[in-house]
Amino acid sequence: MGRVYVVGAGPGDPELITVKGLRLLENADVVLHDRLVAPELLKRVKPGAVVIDVGKRPGGAGPTQAEINEILFKYAQLYNTVVRLHGGDPLVFGRGFEECEYLVARGVPCEFVPGVTSGFAAPARYYIPPVVRGTASSVALVTGREDPSKGLRQVNFRRLANAVDTIVIYMGASSAGEIAIELIEGGLSGETPVAVIKSAYFKDEEFYTTTLSRLGPVPNPSIIVVGRVVERGARLWEAARRLL
Amino acid sequence: MGRVYVVGAGPGDPELITVKGLRLLENADVVLHDRLVAPELLKRVKPGAVVIDVGKRPGGAGPTQAEINEILFKYAQLYNTVVRLHGGDPLVFGRGFEECEYLVARGVPCEFVPGVTSGFAAPARYYIPPVVRGTASSVALVTGREDPSKGLRQVNFRRLANAVDTIVIYMGASSAGEIAIELIEGGLSGETPVAVIKSAYFKDEEFYTTTLSRLGPVPNPSIIVVGRVVERGARLWEAARRLL
Repeated sequence: MGRVYVVGAGPGDPELITVKGLRLLENADVVLHDRLVAPELLKRVKPGAVVIDVGKRPGGAGPTQAEINEILFKYAQLYNTVVRLHGGDPLVFGRGFEECEYLVARGVPCEFVPGVTSGFAAPARYYIPPVVRGTASSVALVTGREDPSKGLRQVNFRRLANAVDTIVIYMGASSAGEIAIELIEGGLSGETPVAVIKSAYFKDEEFYTTTLSRLGPVPNPSIIVVGRVVERGARLWEAARRLL
Repeated sequence: MGRVYVVGAGPGDPELITVKGLRLLENADVVLHDRLVAPELLKRVKPGAVVIDVGKRPGGAGPTQAEINEILFKYAQLYNTVVRLHGGDPLVFGRGFEECEYLVARGVPCEFVPGVTSGFAAPARYYIPPVVRGTASSVALVTGREDPSKGLRQVNFRRLANAVDTIVIYMGASSAGEIAIELIEGGLSGETPVAVIKSAYFKDEEFYTTTLSRLGPVPNPSIIVVGRVVERGARLWEAARRLL
């Protein structure tokens, strides 16, 4: 019986994986990876390693979660070291927990190796802090998705609006405009600054700032940051980039 | 003029720094570090590098932030590569942003290198996910500290109580009991599960679970996690540890 390491690859920069994550990747017999991991990382696997892309394509094609669980279980019986490589952190809007639950219930040893989550790494690239003294002392990381079984958004944005200083939205590309309306209804000013970071650290990266009242659909996949930190960060970024 | 890299060291495990962070650390002429970075990391600096501990001691001794800013500025004028090494992530309840603001205002190039924040890495060690399908779709990271200028807690825990599914509290050791009361007043059940993780990945690490109504002062430094994810995570951890 092998062991499964559920590893965070960090954002698109291959150097932002942890030292431990890279070491496990280089020693893995089998690697199952998401679509959103740096392609350079996959070149680091040892010769002969089995590499399987289990990422979801836009539109939804790709193996289901049940299929991914089954593949992990199968390879853990055949090989010593299986790495399940998630973009960002496997536990922050990844499915790493469910995979590990499935494996452990079947007697397969499973470990998590955290990674830098894109909700923090993407804004950091543009010098936007999630929290900073004098401007923000709380940050919420939330999904913009609806619950498919209920047809309702999973997060109550009206309630969230005034409960934290900064809101970081994952998977909010298609619903950004609606979320903005809910946040304004919840009490946030339409002038609240917003940053959109698409595909941070990848080649097709994009970055722009706007305000809540002007926020419409954004490119996919993006991280959306709402709050006064955006203004303070963007100001530092403007000054800092001139010196780089 | 040198360049300052504001780097996250991740939590106490020296292998949880990013590959980029370690590369910069190994090439640095000067390293200014927090108290909460893995001691093994500091052995990786090159011979002759200047290493300065600027960490706060319990009780508050150690250089002020203004002094740290000044030291960074001074060394950036003398050396090529200065690394400011923060525990966790430099922008998540670190002072990395303020340091960079100070330096950029004085013409010193400054870059952030994100790290795994302890608010996620500490619970991950005990298989506790901040969010997970079916249990939690939002998480807030907050400080338990008071604003010294106002004598009030910086975060409105009554409002936060029902706005997110999971709450991760940094720097809440001394005020944990009061925060628990505020969360219950805000609408959370006294039976809400709580995890306390002290010094994750360090030798003096501790972990226990309790409930909101039983939460009192906790050891310092700790990460406190409040929410139903604690129960689901602790259940997986109990099963998983037997297989490791």
